[in-house]
Amino acid sequence: MGKRVHNFNPGPAALPLSVLEEIKEEFLDFKGTGMSVIEVSHRSKQFEAVLNEAIERTKRLLKLGDDFHVLFIQGGASLQFTMVPMNLAVDGKPVDYIHSGNWANNAIKEAKLIGKDVRVIATSQDKNFSYMPKDFQVDKDASYLHITSNETIRGTQWAQFPKVSVPLVSDMSSDFMSRPFDARPFGLIYAGAQKNVGPSGSAVVIVRKDMIERIPANLPTMFKYTTFAENNSLHNTPACFVIYVINLVLRWLEEKIGGLEAIEKINREKAKFLYDFMDRSGFYRGTAEKESRSFMNIPFRLPTEDLEAKFVAEATKAGFAGLKGHRSVGGCRASIYNATGIDAVKDLVSFMADFQKKAG
Amino acid sequence: MGKRVHNFNPGPAALPLSVLEEIKEEFLDFKGTGMSVIEVSHRSKQFEAVLNEAIERTKRLLKLGDDFHVLFIQGGASLQFTMVPMNLAVDGKPVDYIHSGNWANNAIKEAKLIGKDVRVIATSQDKNFSYMPKDFQVDKDASYLHITSNETIRGTQWAQFPKVSVPLVSDMSSDFMSRPFDARPFGLIYAGAQKNVGPSGSAVVIVRKDMIERIPANLPTMFKYTTFAENNSLHNTPACFVIYVINLVLRWLEEKIGGLEAIEKINREKAKFLYDFMDRSGFYRGTAEKESRSFMNIPFRLPTEDLEAKFVAEATKAGFAGLKGHRSVGGCRASIYNATGIDAVKDLVSFMADFQKKAG
Repeated sequence: MGKRVHNFNPGPAALPLSVLEEIKEEFLDFKGTGMSVIEVSHRSKQFEAVLNEAIERTKRLLKLGDDFHVLFIQGGASLQFTMVPMNLAVDGKPVDYIHSGNWANNAIKEAKLIGKDVRVIATSQDKNFSYMPKDFQVDKDASYLHITSNETIRGTQWAQFPKVSVPLVSDMSSDFMSRPFDARPFGLIYAGAQKNVGPSGSAVVIVRKDMIERIPANLPTMFKYTTFAENNSLHNTPACFVIYVINLVLRWLEEKIGGLEAIEKINREKAKFLYDFMDRSGFYRGTAEKESRSFMNIPFRLPTEDLEAKFVAEATKAGFAGLKGHRSVGGCRASIYNATGIDAVKDLVSFMADFQKKAG
Repeated sequence: MGKRVHNFNPGPAALPLSVLEEIKEEFLDFKGTGMSVIEVSHRSKQFEAVLNEAIERTKRLLKLGDDFHVLFIQGGASLQFTMVPMNLAVDGKPVDYIHSGNWANNAIKEAKLIGKDVRVIATSQDKNFSYMPKDFQVDKDASYLHITSNETIRGTQWAQFPKVSVPLVSDMSSDFMSRPFDARPFGLIYAGAQKNVGPSGSAVVIVRKDMIERIPANLPTMFKYTTFAENNSLHNTPACFVIYVINLVLRWLEEKIGGLEAIEKINREKAKFLYDFMDRSGFYRGTAEKESRSFMNIPFRLPTEDLEAKFVAEATKAGFAGLKGHRSVGGCRASIYNATGIDAVKDLVSFMADFQKKAG
């Protein structure tokens, strides 16, 4: 086996090595069934146990009461951009969105496309989406307020979620399961699995049960949260392997790491280490405003684009993967999700210091 | 490792052991990247090579010309029940469906639910869906004719596809890649991967390029075939692991088996072995009419329900998995997809003969 690289990919991303080893170990014989996990029926008691365990772990980690459904829906966060307004927009009540960057924009576009009355009540477009908006008014007649808890591309994150009187809805794809928070104000939370909790191929969708009443009866079966809620995500065959891995990652998070308080501490320590170095460097420049900085995705610039290209190329050769910035904004970016350890960040900082020395 | 069972599951189902072993072997280090295949970016050159290889293999195996797109769309065949009429129904032209059982019925329901002008032009409901309809008229003003090439639950299969003047659309989930056929009359073909070609979590969708012109411009992004066709299925993160496995299974089919002519011969031999035994037995009774018999899914009854329950229980104990009939119809069923070998079928027949002897 080749040397394992330090993985700073924005998603799909690093997963815990112990989880990967466990998948490999039991890949030909899932729980004594004599079949691989990708060959067993989604209606077998072995798979249903995995599914229910993943749901229970999600509930325990996020301290969700019994008033929440945990669903697994294929199609990623991108499908949720449409499903959320289809299901949760109440007739005659506008849907409010905060526009904080590319992903928020995609959510807004899809809500408009299906003809909803969309109000963009705040945006950080004036400063190139380098911060999370602070001043806004949510009308209490809104169906919901949609936010993006963490902007993967811009590297901004809500330090505290807004307090509003309407249900919050959040795309949490890139900071789901990275810190504890009070889920009760949220009518719905969705997250593509492929950052903090698993492989690509499923979104985790958390719906507060009172939201179910809003769902129009005549939606297509596969576009309705009701279909997934009433059938424990087993109306049709779900992405079994993805759910299986999610359960193992959540077990790692609960049992090896110690839950969300513990991982938040680690995540903040990793981010602080990198930001502190960059701030002192006079060479690497973070692009997000300090009070909105993400501890998951850290975009940064070097003095010139040539240096950035050289940095990414040399870093790749030295065993640091995924440091190129998103194609829409350029520059560099280090994504440091739950499974990217402090060791990887320390090694990256050493590499960055060396690179600066040679470039200077 | 426990003994590998003979897997007769209807899907997710048996996959080739050599493919499973290869996945296991390289699970911690995908193509020398120093990352697992579930950790690499969907935009990495290594993953894009896999995606393009899977597309090329699909085209080669099915002898598709350049006038077809091969797409990977999450959500299974069930999502396609809605996407097909959303995208391919032409204004003012009805959509024609043949009702051959549970899966066809689901496709019909979803087309009606979104308000399309659905004509069910033939049904085999009169004989409990035990055959594929033969006599029907397709009006040449229809947007398309939808068929289900193989009914997984009823065990019926089109021996020859209908010849009509409108584009054919087929749910091929349970016999995709099991036999060669002329794809040119098909405007669209879709198949959940989890039977013949991979794990659950993606449908393979084959669209003839002239169909793209029909697609309404204002559909939600994730519901439009255009989105997938224009971005080589990479508009958002696809189900990377599923596509990776599909490619390995198709490689096995091309290189180890020798393509669709070769696998059809094997599939017919397996089915004949089982049907011939049942027909001679005077104990096991196939439920599909002979000329519509599927060579993929073989449902059968025993003299009593008690005997059926006993049969399934003892078979399970003896290492034959997945023989229970679908919960909607009862009885027993052996699904013998591409990766279930003739050895498994012969062992099953021996077991069935022994069981009959003991029961008689």
